[in-house]
Amino acid sequence: MSLSAAVRLRPGPVDLTSVETDAAPGFEGRKADGEAALAAMGAELAELQERLFAEGQSGGRRSVLLVLQGMDTSGKGGTLRHTVGLVDPQGVRITSFKAPTEEERAHDFLWRIERALPLPGILGVFDRSHYEDVLIARVRSLAPPEEIERRYTAINELEQRLVDGGTTVVKCMLHISAAEQKERLLARLDDPTKYWKFNPGDIDERTQWPRYREAYEVALERTHTEAAPWHVVPADKKWFRNLAIGTLLLEALRGLDPQWPAPDFDIDEQRGRLLDEAPIA
Amino acid sequence: MSLSAAVRLRPGPVDLTSVETDAAPGFEGRKADGEAALAAMGAELAELQERLFAEGQSGGRRSVLLVLQGMDTSGKGGTLRHTVGLVDPQGVRITSFKAPTEEERAHDFLWRIERALPLPGILGVFDRSHYEDVLIARVRSLAPPEEIERRYTAINELEQRLVDGGTTVVKCMLHISAAEQKERLLARLDDPTKYWKFNPGDIDERTQWPRYREAYEVALERTHTEAAPWHVVPADKKWFRNLAIGTLLLEALRGLDPQWPAPDFDIDEQRGRLLDEAPIA
Repeated sequence: MSLSAAVRLRPGPVDLTSVETDAAPGFEGRKADGEAALAAMGAELAELQERLFAEGQSGGRRSVLLVLQGMDTSGKGGTLRHTVGLVDPQGVRITSFKAPTEEERAHDFLWRIERALPLPGILGVFDRSHYEDVLIARVRSLAPPEEIERRYTAINELEQRLVDGGTTVVKCMLHISAAEQKERLLARLDDPTKYWKFNPGDIDERTQWPRYREAYEVALERTHTEAAPWHVVPADKKWFRNLAIGTLLLEALRGLDPQWPAPDFDIDEQRGRLLDEAPIA
Repeated sequence: MSLSAAVRLRPGPVDLTSVETDAAPGFEGRKADGEAALAAMGAELAELQERLFAEGQSGGRRSVLLVLQGMDTSGKGGTLRHTVGLVDPQGVRITSFKAPTEEERAHDFLWRIERALPLPGILGVFDRSHYEDVLIARVRSLAPPEEIERRYTAINELEQRLVDGGTTVVKCMLHISAAEQKERLLARLDDPTKYWKFNPGDIDERTQWPRYREAYEVALERTHTEAAPWHVVPADKKWFRNLAIGTLLLEALRGLDPQWPAPDFDIDEQRGRLLDEAPIA
Protein backbone atom coordinates (compact mmCIF):
# COMPACT_ATOMS: atom_id res chain seq x y z
CA MET A 1 0.00 0.00 0.00
CA SER A 2 1.24 3.51 -0.75
CA LEU A 3 2.23 5.73 2.12
CA SER A 4 -0.64 8.13 1.55
CA ALA A 5 -3.20 5.31 1.45
CA ALA A 6 -1.63 3.84 4.59
CA VAL A 7 -2.10 7.00 6.62
CA ARG A 8 -5.56 7.80 5.30
CA LEU A 9 -8.20 7.28 7.95
CA ARG A 10 -10.72 4.50 7.31
CA PRO A 11 -14.36 5.57 7.59
CA GLY A 12 -16.30 4.57 10.67
CA PRO A 13 -15.54 4.54 14.38
CA VAL A 14 -11.99 5.66 15.19
CA ASP A 15 -9.78 3.95 17.75
CA LEU A 16 -6.50 5.82 18.02
CA THR A 17 -5.04 3.26 20.42
CA SER A 18 -5.00 0.87 17.48
CA VAL A 19 -2.77 3.17 15.39
CA GLU A 20 0.90 2.73 16.18
CA THR A 21 2.60 6.07 16.79
CA ASP A 22 6.12 4.89 16.00
CA ALA A 23 5.32 3.07 12.78
CA ALA A 24 6.24 4.05 9.23
CA PRO A 25 3.31 2.59 7.30
CA GLY A 26 3.61 2.32 3.56
CA PHE A 27 7.34 3.01 3.58
CA GLU A 28 10.04 0.40 3.23
CA GLY A 29 13.14 1.93 4.67
CA ARG A 30 14.71 3.58 7.66
CA LYS A 31 15.50 7.10 8.76
CA ALA A 32 18.20 7.85 6.20
CA ASP A 33 16.03 6.47 3.41
CA GLY A 34 13.09 8.57 4.55
CA GLU A 35 15.16 11.73 4.67
CA ALA A 36 16.56 11.00 1.22
CA ALA A 37 13.07 10.33 -0.12
CA LEU A 38 11.82 13.67 1.22
CA ALA A 39 14.81 15.54 -0.21
CA ALA A 40 14.24 13.81 -3.53
CA MET A 41 10.72 15.17 -3.80
CA GLY A 42 11.78 18.74 -3.05
CA ALA A 43 12.26 19.86 -6.64
CA GLU A 44 8.92 18.48 -7.87
CA LEU A 45 7.12 19.87 -4.84
CA ALA A 46 8.63 23.31 -5.44
CA GLU A 47 7.81 23.26 -9.15
CA LEU A 48 4.21 22.16 -8.68
CA GLN A 49 3.73 24.79 -6.01
CA GLU A 50 5.16 27.46 -8.32
CA ARG A 51 2.83 26.31 -11.09
CA LEU A 52 -0.11 26.59 -8.74
CA PHE A 53 1.06 30.06 -7.71
CA ALA A 54 1.40 31.04 -11.38
CA GLU A 55 -2.11 29.75 -12.02
CA GLY A 56 -3.41 31.83 -9.12
CA GLN A 57 -1.69 34.93 -10.46
CA SER A 58 -3.29 34.31 -13.85
CA GLY A 59 -6.93 34.10 -12.85
CA GLY A 60 -7.04 30.55 -11.49
CA ARG A 61 -9.06 29.94 -8.33
CA ARG A 62 -7.44 26.83 -6.91
CA SER A 63 -5.43 26.58 -3.72
CA VAL A 64 -4.31 24.07 -1.11
CA LEU A 65 -4.98 24.13 2.61
CA LEU A 66 -2.85 21.94 4.86
CA VAL A 67 -4.37 21.52 8.32
CA LEU A 68 -1.97 20.32 11.03
CA GLN A 69 -3.41 19.10 14.29
CA GLY A 70 -1.74 17.22 17.11
CA MET A 71 -0.91 17.26 20.78
CA ASP A 72 1.86 19.53 22.10
CA THR A 73 5.30 18.45 20.85
CA SER A 74 3.75 16.38 18.05
CA GLY A 75 5.87 18.33 15.59
CA LYS A 76 3.70 20.88 13.84
CA GLY A 77 6.56 23.38 13.88
CA GLY A 78 9.09 20.86 12.66
CA THR A 79 6.80 19.96 9.78
CA LEU A 80 6.64 23.59 8.77
CA ARG A 81 10.42 23.88 8.76
CA HIS A 82 11.28 20.62 7.05
CA THR A 83 8.39 20.08 4.67
CA VAL A 84 6.60 23.35 3.94
CA GLY A 85 10.08 24.93 3.95
CA LEU A 86 10.85 23.06 0.72
CA VAL A 87 8.75 25.44 -1.38
CA ASP A 88 9.01 29.14 -2.23
CA PRO A 89 7.87 31.11 0.85
CA GLN A 90 6.22 33.63 -1.45
CA GLY A 91 3.43 31.18 -2.21
CA VAL A 92 2.88 29.99 1.35
CA ARG A 93 0.70 31.46 4.04
CA ILE A 94 1.06 29.97 7.51
CA THR A 95 -1.38 30.78 10.27
CA SER A 96 -0.75 29.63 13.84
CA PHE A 97 -3.93 29.61 15.82
CA LYS A 98 -3.55 30.32 19.52
CA ALA A 99 -6.21 30.61 22.21
CA PRO A 100 -8.79 32.95 20.65
CA THR A 101 -8.61 36.65 21.46
CA GLU A 102 -11.53 38.51 22.95
CA GLU A 103 -12.49 39.78 19.48
CA GLU A 104 -12.31 36.29 18.04
CA ARG A 105 -14.41 34.86 20.86
CA ALA A 106 -17.06 37.50 20.19
CA HIS A 107 -17.52 36.00 16.70
CA ASP A 108 -18.51 32.53 15.57
CA PHE A 109 -15.60 30.11 15.92
CA LEU A 110 -15.12 30.02 12.14
CA TRP A 111 -14.71 33.79 11.78
CA ARG A 112 -10.97 33.78 12.30
CA ILE A 113 -10.64 30.71 10.10
CA GLU A 114 -12.37 32.40 7.16
CA ARG A 115 -9.98 35.34 7.43
CA ALA A 116 -6.97 33.05 7.18
CA LEU A 117 -8.08 30.95 4.19
CA PRO A 118 -5.57 30.80 1.32
CA LEU A 119 -6.06 33.06 -1.67
CA PRO A 120 -5.95 31.49 -5.16
CA GLY A 121 -2.61 29.87 -5.93
CA ILE A 122 -1.51 29.84 -2.31
CA LEU A 123 -0.50 26.93 -0.12
CA GLY A 124 -2.19 27.80 3.14
CA VAL A 125 -1.06 26.05 6.30
CA PHE A 126 -2.97 25.97 9.56
CA ASP A 127 -0.82 25.21 12.59
CA ARG A 128 -3.75 24.20 14.77
CA SER A 129 -7.10 25.17 13.35
CA HIS A 130 -10.87 25.19 13.74
CA TYR A 131 -10.45 21.69 15.19
CA GLU A 132 -9.26 23.22 18.45
CA ASP A 133 -12.87 24.31 18.86
CA VAL A 134 -13.99 20.69 19.10
CA LEU A 135 -10.85 19.39 20.87
CA ILE A 136 -9.70 21.55 23.77
CA ALA A 137 -13.15 23.12 23.74
CA ARG A 138 -14.65 19.68 24.39
CA VAL A 139 -12.05 18.53 26.91
CA ARG A 140 -12.08 21.79 28.86
CA SER A 141 -15.81 22.45 28.42
CA LEU A 142 -15.14 25.82 26.83
CA ALA A 143 -18.51 25.59 25.09
CA PRO A 144 -21.77 23.75 25.94
CA PRO A 145 -22.18 20.23 24.49
CA GLU A 146 -24.84 21.34 22.00
CA GLU A 147 -22.51 24.04 20.68
CA ILE A 148 -19.69 21.51 20.25
CA GLU A 149 -22.18 19.26 18.48
CA ARG A 150 -23.16 22.07 16.10
CA ARG A 151 -19.52 22.67 15.23
CA TYR A 152 -18.85 19.29 13.62
CA THR A 153 -21.53 20.03 11.05
CA ALA A 154 -20.39 23.61 10.61
CA ILE A 155 -16.84 22.39 9.97
CA ASN A 156 -18.00 19.88 7.38
CA GLU A 157 -20.06 22.53 5.63
CA LEU A 158 -17.15 24.97 5.59
CA GLU A 159 -14.75 22.38 4.23
CA GLN A 160 -17.25 21.26 1.57
CA ARG A 161 -17.61 24.87 0.48
CA LEU A 162 -13.84 25.28 0.33
CA VAL A 163 -13.47 22.18 -1.80
CA ASP A 164 -16.33 23.29 -4.06
CA GLY A 165 -14.51 26.60 -4.46
CA GLY A 166 -11.29 24.98 -5.62
CA THR A 167 -9.34 24.45 -2.41
CA THR A 168 -7.78 21.04 -1.84
CA VAL A 169 -7.96 20.40 1.90
CA VAL A 170 -5.27 18.11 3.36
CA LYS A 171 -5.98 17.30 7.00
CA CYS A 172 -3.30 15.66 9.12
CA MET A 173 -3.35 14.57 12.70
CA LEU A 174 0.20 14.15 13.99
CA HIS A 175 -0.16 11.11 16.20
CA ILE A 176 2.34 10.69 19.05
CA SER A 177 2.23 8.58 22.17
CA ALA A 178 2.05 9.98 25.68
CA ALA A 179 5.44 8.39 26.35
CA GLU A 180 6.99 10.14 23.35
CA GLN A 181 5.52 13.45 24.46
CA LYS A 182 7.07 12.93 27.89
CA GLU A 183 10.47 12.35 26.29
CA ARG A 184 10.12 15.50 24.20
CA LEU A 185 9.05 17.61 27.16
CA LEU A 186 11.99 16.30 29.18
CA ALA A 187 14.29 17.09 26.24
CA ARG A 188 13.01 20.67 26.24
CA LEU A 189 13.92 20.92 29.91
CA ASP A 190 17.44 19.74 29.10
CA ASP A 191 18.08 22.25 26.32
CA PRO A 192 18.36 26.01 26.95
CA THR A 193 17.48 26.64 23.27
CA LYS A 194 14.13 24.96 23.90
CA TYR A 195 13.04 26.36 27.27
CA TRP A 196 10.87 28.88 25.44
CA LYS A 197 8.81 26.06 23.97
CA PHE A 198 8.07 24.61 27.38
CA ASN A 199 4.95 25.56 29.28
CA PRO A 200 4.22 24.01 32.68
CA GLY A 201 0.57 23.91 31.62
CA ASP A 202 1.54 21.26 29.05
CA ILE A 203 2.08 18.84 31.94
CA ASP A 204 -1.36 19.60 33.35
CA GLU A 205 -2.82 18.93 29.92
CA ARG A 206 -1.23 15.45 29.97
CA THR A 207 -3.54 14.44 32.81
CA GLN A 208 -6.34 14.85 30.26
CA TRP A 209 -4.61 12.65 27.66
CA PRO A 210 -7.40 10.02 27.45
CA ARG A 211 -10.00 12.76 27.12
CA TYR A 212 -8.03 14.42 24.31
CA ARG A 213 -7.75 11.06 22.60
CA GLU A 214 -11.49 10.63 22.83
CA ALA A 215 -12.07 14.17 21.55
CA TYR A 216 -9.78 13.46 18.60
CA GLU A 217 -11.55 10.19 17.90
CA VAL A 218 -14.93 11.87 17.81
CA ALA A 219 -13.66 14.77 15.72
CA LEU A 220 -11.90 12.50 13.24
CA GLU A 221 -14.93 10.30 12.86
CA ARG A 222 -17.39 13.16 12.48
CA THR A 223 -15.34 15.22 10.04
CA HIS A 224 -13.74 12.52 7.89
CA THR A 225 -15.55 13.36 4.66
CA GLU A 226 -14.99 12.48 1.06
CA ALA A 227 -14.35 16.13 0.31
CA ALA A 228 -11.83 16.58 3.11
CA PRO A 229 -10.56 13.29 4.50
CA TRP A 230 -8.29 12.91 7.51
CA HIS A 231 -4.83 11.39 7.66
CA VAL A 232 -3.48 10.01 10.90
CA VAL A 233 0.27 10.36 10.63
CA PRO A 234 2.39 8.34 13.06
CA ALA A 235 4.65 11.08 14.39
CA ASP A 236 6.98 9.52 16.97
CA LYS A 237 9.51 9.25 14.15
CA LYS A 238 10.11 12.81 12.99
CA TRP A 239 11.54 11.69 9.68
CA PHE A 240 8.42 9.68 8.89
CA ARG A 241 6.14 12.55 9.89
CA ASN A 242 8.00 14.89 7.49
CA LEU A 243 8.04 12.34 4.71
CA ALA A 244 4.35 11.53 5.12
CA ILE A 245 3.24 15.15 5.00
CA GLY A 246 5.58 15.88 2.11
CA THR A 247 4.03 12.94 0.28
CA LEU A 248 0.49 14.11 0.98
CA LEU A 249 1.31 17.61 -0.24
CA LEU A 250 3.00 16.27 -3.33
CA GLU A 251 0.04 14.05 -4.16
CA ALA A 252 -2.40 16.91 -3.61
CA LEU A 253 -0.42 19.08 -6.01
CA ARG A 254 -0.04 16.28 -8.54
CA GLY A 255 -3.80 15.79 -8.36
CA LEU A 256 -4.32 19.46 -9.23
CA ASP A 257 -1.77 19.11 -12.02
CA PRO A 258 -1.34 22.87 -12.43
CA GLN A 259 -0.02 23.98 -15.81
CA TRP A 260 2.14 26.96 -16.63
CA PRO A 261 -0.36 29.59 -17.80
CA ALA A 262 -0.55 30.20 -21.54
CA PRO A 263 0.40 33.72 -22.63
CA ASP A 264 -2.51 36.14 -23.05
CA PHE A 265 -0.40 38.20 -25.46
CA ASP A 266 1.35 37.63 -28.77
CA ILE A 267 4.90 36.56 -27.96
CA ASP A 268 6.49 37.69 -31.21
CA GLU A 269 4.73 41.03 -31.08
CA GLN A 270 6.01 41.69 -27.57
CA ARG A 271 9.51 40.57 -28.47
CA GLY A 272 9.41 42.96 -31.42
CA ARG A 273 8.30 45.84 -29.22
CA LEU A 274 11.27 45.25 -26.93
CA LEU A 275 13.79 44.86 -29.74
CA ASP A 276 12.52 47.95 -31.59
CA GLU A 277 12.06 50.28 -28.67
CA ALA A 278 13.67 53.71 -28.56
CA PRO A 279 16.90 53.91 -26.55
CA ILE A 280 16.44 54.54 -22.84
CA ALA A 281 18.60 57.23 -21.30
CA MET B 1 34.80 48.39 3.06
CA SER B 2 32.26 45.77 4.17
CA LEU B 3 29.53 44.78 1.79
CA SER B 4 26.81 46.30 3.92
CA ALA B 5 28.66 49.61 4.21
CA ALA B 6 29.29 49.57 0.47
CA VAL B 7 25.61 49.31 -0.41
CA ARG B 8 24.41 51.75 2.21
CA LEU B 9 23.21 54.97 0.66
CA ARG B 10 25.25 58.11 1.43
CA PRO B 11 23.21 61.03 2.77
CA GLY B 12 22.46 63.91 0.43
CA PRO B 13 21.38 64.17 -3.19
CA VAL B 14 21.05 60.79 -4.89
CA ASP B 15 22.28 60.10 -8.43
CA LEU B 16 21.40 56.55 -9.38
CA THR B 17 23.25 56.81 -12.70
CA SER B 18 26.43 56.91 -10.67
CA VAL B 19 25.73 53.55 -9.01
CA GLU B 20 26.83 50.62 -11.16
CA THR B 21 24.11 48.03 -11.46
CA ASP B 22 26.39 45.10 -12.29
CA ALA B 23 28.95 45.68 -9.57
CA ALA B 24 29.60 43.61 -6.46
CA PRO B 25 30.78 46.30 -4.05
CA GLY B 26 32.42 45.19 -0.85
CA PHE B 27 32.83 41.61 -2.02
CA GLU B 28 36.02 40.07 -3.33
CA GLY B 29 34.99 37.11 -5.37
CA ARG B 30 32.88 35.84 -8.21
CA LYS B 31 29.55 34.08 -8.58
CA ALA B 32 30.54 30.73 -7.06
CA ASP B 33 32.17 32.51 -4.11
CA GLY B 34 29.09 34.63 -3.58
CA GLU B 35 26.78 31.63 -3.63
CA ALA B 36 29.05 29.81 -1.20
CA ALA B 37 29.16 32.84 1.08
CA LEU B 38 25.38 33.03 1.16
CA ALA B 39 25.03 29.31 1.84
CA ALA B 40 27.60 29.63 4.61
CA MET B 41 25.52 32.21 6.44
CA GLY B 42 22.35 30.11 6.28
CA ALA B 43 22.76 28.36 9.62
CA GLU B 44 23.52 31.56 11.55
CA LEU B 45 20.69 33.41 9.84
CA ALA B 46 18.25 30.63 10.69
CA GLU B 47 19.41 30.43 14.30
CA LEU B 48 19.23 34.19 14.89
CA GLN B 49 15.78 34.29 13.32
CA GLU B 50 14.63 31.44 15.54
CA ARG B 51 16.01 33.25 18.58
CA LEU B 52 14.10 36.37 17.58
CA PHE B 53 10.96 34.28 17.10
CA ALA B 54 11.49 32.69 20.53
CA GLU B 55 11.91 36.16 22.04
CA GLY B 56 8.66 37.27 20.40
CA GLN B 57 6.84 34.23 21.79
CA SER B 58 8.17 35.03 25.24
CA GLY B 59 7.01 38.62 25.59
CA GLY B 60 9.67 40.38 23.51
CA ARG B 61 8.54 43.20 21.25
CA ARG B 62 11.24 43.27 18.60
CA SER B 63 10.87 42.37 14.96
CA VAL B 64 12.50 42.96 11.59
CA LEU B 65 10.93 44.47 8.50
CA LEU B 66 12.68 43.96 5.18
CA VAL B 67 11.42 46.33 2.50
CA LEU B 68 12.17 45.31 -1.10
CA GLN B 69 11.71 47.87 -3.83
CA GLY B 70 12.85 47.80 -7.44
CA MET B 71 11.71 47.97 -11.03
CA ASP B 72 9.98 44.98 -12.62
CA THR B 73 12.33 41.99 -12.99
CA SER B 74 14.75 43.43 -10.44
CA GLY B 75 14.47 40.20 -8.49
CA LYS B 76 12.22 40.74 -5.52
CA GLY B 77 10.75 37.28 -5.96
CA GLY B 78 14.15 35.65 -6.39
CA THR B 79 15.34 37.31 -3.21
CA LEU B 80 12.40 35.85 -1.33
CA ARG B 81 13.17 32.36 -2.60
CA HIS B 82 16.93 32.38 -2.17
CA THR B 83 17.47 34.57 0.87
CA VAL B 84 14.32 34.75 2.97
CA GLY B 85 13.87 31.07 2.11
CA LEU B 86 16.90 30.27 4.28
CA VAL B 87 14.95 30.74 7.51
CA ASP B 88 12.02 28.91 9.11
CA PRO B 89 8.85 29.95 7.23
CA GLN B 90 6.97 29.89 10.53
CA GLY B 91 8.66 33.12 11.59
CA VAL B 92 8.30 34.95 8.28
CA ARG B 93 5.41 37.01 7.00
CA ILE B 94 5.63 38.12 3.38
CA THR B 95 3.26 40.69 1.95
CA SER B 96 3.20 41.44 -1.76
CA PHE B 97 1.64 44.81 -2.41
CA LYS B 98 -0.24 45.12 -5.70
CA ALA B 99 -2.16 48.07 -7.09
CA PRO B 100 -4.40 49.12 -4.20
CA THR B 101 -7.95 47.78 -4.07
CA GLU B 102 -10.94 50.07 -3.90
CA GLU B 103 -11.11 49.58 -0.13
CA GLU B 104 -7.41 50.35 0.23
CA ARG B 105 -7.72 53.48 -1.91
CA ALA B 106 -10.55 54.68 0.28
CA HIS B 107 -8.12 54.76 3.21
CA ASP B 108 -4.89 56.65 3.74
CA PHE B 109 -2.04 55.06 1.79
CA LEU B 110 -0.49 53.72 5.00
CA TRP B 111 -3.62 51.86 6.11
CA ARG B 112 -2.78 48.65 4.30
CA ILE B 113 0.84 48.96 5.41
CA GLU B 114 -0.10 49.13 9.09
CA ARG B 115 -2.17 45.98 8.72
CA ALA B 116 0.80 44.08 7.31
CA LEU B 117 3.43 45.09 9.87
CA PRO B 118 5.27 42.20 11.53
CA LEU B 119 4.18 41.03 14.95
CA PRO B 120 6.86 40.64 17.67
CA GLY B 121 9.50 38.08 16.76
CA ILE B 122 8.54 38.02 13.10
CA LEU B 123 10.64 38.75 10.05
CA GLY B 124 8.24 40.75 7.93
CA VAL B 125 8.99 41.18 4.25
CA PHE B 126 7.38 43.74 1.97
CA ASP B 127 7.56 42.85 -1.72
CA ARG B 128 6.88 46.42 -2.88
CA SER B 129 5.61 48.67 -0.16
CA HIS B 130 4.42 52.15 0.84
CA TYR B 131 7.14 53.43 -1.48
CA GLU B 132 4.95 52.63 -4.48
CA ASP B 133 2.83 55.54 -3.27
CA VAL B 134 5.68 57.96 -3.99
CA LEU B 135 7.08 56.08 -7.01
CA ILE B 136 4.43 54.96 -9.51
CA ALA B 137 2.08 57.45 -7.85
CA ARG B 138 4.52 60.25 -8.77
CA VAL B 139 5.37 58.99 -12.25
CA ARG B 140 1.76 58.28 -13.18
CA SER B 141 0.29 61.26 -11.27
CA LEU B 142 -1.96 58.99 -9.25
CA ALA B 143 -2.06 61.65 -6.55
CA PRO B 144 -1.63 65.45 -6.59
CA PRO B 145 1.92 66.77 -6.01
CA GLU B 146 1.08 68.12 -2.55
CA GLU B 147 -0.22 64.70 -1.53
CA ILE B 148 2.97 63.02 -2.77
CA GLU B 149 4.92 65.65 -0.85
CA ARG B 150 2.99 64.89 2.33
CA ARG B 151 3.75 61.19 1.97
CA TYR B 152 7.53 61.44 2.35
CA THR B 153 7.05 62.91 5.80
CA ALA B 154 4.32 60.44 6.66
CA ILE B 155 6.61 57.58 5.69
CA ASN B 156 9.46 58.89 7.81
CA GLU B 157 7.14 59.31 10.77
CA LEU B 158 5.78 55.78 10.37
CA GLU B 159 9.23 54.26 10.11
CA GLN B 160 10.51 56.24 13.10
CA ARG B 161 7.57 54.95 15.11
CA LEU B 162 8.29 51.39 14.00
CA VAL B 163 11.91 51.68 15.03
CA ASP B 164 10.95 53.25 18.36
CA GLY B 165 8.62 50.29 18.89
CA GLY B 166 11.37 47.73 18.38
CA THR B 167 11.25 46.99 14.65
CA THR B 168 14.51 47.02 12.74
CA VAL B 169 13.71 48.36 9.27
CA VAL B 170 15.96 47.17 6.42
CA LYS B 171 15.22 49.03 3.20
CA CYS B 172 16.66 47.77 -0.07
CA MET B 173 16.35 49.14 -3.55
CA LEU B 174 17.22 46.43 -6.08
CA HIS B 175 19.06 48.44 -8.70
CA ILE B 176 19.10 47.08 -12.26
CA SER B 177 19.85 48.76 -15.56
CA ALA B 178 17.29 49.26 -18.30
CA ALA B 179 19.41 47.00 -20.51
CA GLU B 180 19.34 44.21 -17.94
CA GLN B 181 15.58 44.57 -17.58
CA LYS B 182 15.26 44.24 -21.35
CA GLU B 183 17.26 40.99 -21.26
CA ARG B 184 15.10 39.62 -18.47
CA LEU B 185 11.86 40.53 -20.23
CA LEU B 186 13.12 38.89 -23.42
CA ALA B 187 14.09 35.82 -21.42
CA ARG B 188 10.54 35.62 -20.06
CA LEU B 189 9.26 35.62 -23.63
CA ASP B 190 11.56 32.71 -24.46
CA ASP B 191 10.49 30.51 -21.56
CA PRO B 192 6.97 29.01 -21.28
CA THR B 193 7.48 28.63 -17.51
CA LYS B 194 7.83 32.42 -17.29
CA TYR B 195 5.08 33.73 -19.58
CA TRP B 196 2.90 34.27 -16.54
CA LYS B 197 5.38 36.77 -15.17
CA PHE B 198 5.26 38.84 -18.34
CA ASN B 199 2.89 41.75 -18.68
CA PRO B 200 2.84 43.85 -21.88
CA GLY B 201 2.34 46.89 -19.67
CA ASP B 202 5.87 46.35 -18.35
CA ILE B 203 7.17 47.51 -21.73
CA ASP B 204 5.04 50.65 -21.59
CA GLU B 205 6.46 51.34 -18.16
CA ARG B 206 9.98 51.24 -19.64
CA THR B 207 9.25 54.39 -21.61
CA GLN B 208 9.03 56.10 -18.23
CA TRP B 209 12.38 54.72 -17.04
CA PRO B 210 14.06 58.13 -16.51
CA ARG B 211 11.02 59.37 -14.60
CA TYR B 212 11.06 56.28 -12.38
CA ARG B 213 14.75 56.85 -11.76
CA GLU B 214 14.03 60.43 -10.73
CA ALA B 215 11.15 59.30 -8.50
CA TYR B 216 13.47 56.77 -6.84
CA GLU B 217 16.16 59.39 -6.37
CA VAL B 218 13.76 61.78 -4.68
CA ALA B 219 12.26 59.02 -2.54
CA LEU B 220 15.64 57.67 -1.49
CA GLU B 221 16.92 61.12 -0.58
CA ARG B 222 13.82 62.13 1.33
CA THR B 223 13.42 58.91 3.30
CA HIS B 224 17.03 57.96 4.00
CA THR B 225 16.94 58.44 7.75
CA GLU B 226 19.17 57.38 10.59
CA ALA B 227 16.32 55.27 11.94
CA ALA B 228 15.63 53.55 8.62
CA PRO B 229 18.44 53.98 6.10
CA TRP B 230 18.32 52.84 2.48
CA HIS B 231 20.56 50.38 0.74
CA VAL B 232 21.02 50.49 -3.01
CA VAL B 233 21.83 46.93 -4.02
CA PRO B 234 23.34 46.41 -7.48
CA ALA B 235 21.04 43.71 -8.81
CA ASP B 236 22.15 42.85 -12.33
CA LYS B 237 24.09 39.98 -10.78
CA LYS B 238 21.49 37.84 -9.05
CA TRP B 239 24.05 36.14 -6.85
CA PHE B 240 25.28 39.48 -5.53
CA ARG B 241 21.74 40.69 -4.91
CA ASN B 242 21.00 37.56 -2.84
CA LEU B 243 24.29 37.78 -0.98
CA ALA B 244 23.85 41.48 -0.23
CA ILE B 245 20.37 41.10 1.18
CA GLY B 246 21.38 38.00 3.11
CA THR B 247 24.23 40.03 4.59
CA LEU B 248 21.96 42.93 5.52
CA LEU B 249 19.50 40.59 7.19
CA LEU B 250 22.26 38.81 9.04
CA GLU B 251 23.73 42.07 10.30
CA ALA B 252 20.31 43.32 11.37
CA LEU B 253 19.76 40.13 13.37
CA ARG B 254 23.26 40.22 14.81
CA GLY B 255 22.61 43.79 15.88
CA LEU B 256 19.50 42.67 17.75
CA ASP B 257 21.51 39.83 19.27
CA PRO B 258 18.41 37.94 20.42
CA GLN B 259 18.98 35.49 23.26
CA TRP B 260 17.21 32.24 23.98
CA PRO B 261 14.60 33.21 26.56
CA ALA B 262 15.32 32.23 30.15
CA PRO B 263 12.84 29.80 31.68
CA ASP B 264 10.04 31.39 33.71
CA PHE B 265 9.63 28.14 35.62
CA ASP B 266 11.80 25.95 37.83
CA ILE B 267 13.45 23.40 35.59
CA ASP B 268 14.03 20.74 38.25
CA GLU B 269 10.53 21.11 39.58
CA GLN B 270 9.02 20.59 36.13
CA ARG B 271 11.31 17.65 35.42
CA GLY B 272 10.21 16.13 38.71
CA ARG B 273 6.54 16.59 37.84
CA LEU B 274 7.07 14.71 34.59
CA LEU B 275 9.11 11.92 36.13
CA ASP B 276 6.67 11.44 39.01
CA GLU B 277 3.40 11.72 37.13
CA ALA B 278 0.73 9.02 37.31
CA PRO B 279 0.73 6.57 34.40
CA ILE B 280 -1.28 7.67 31.39
CA ALA B 281 -3.64 5.12 29.94
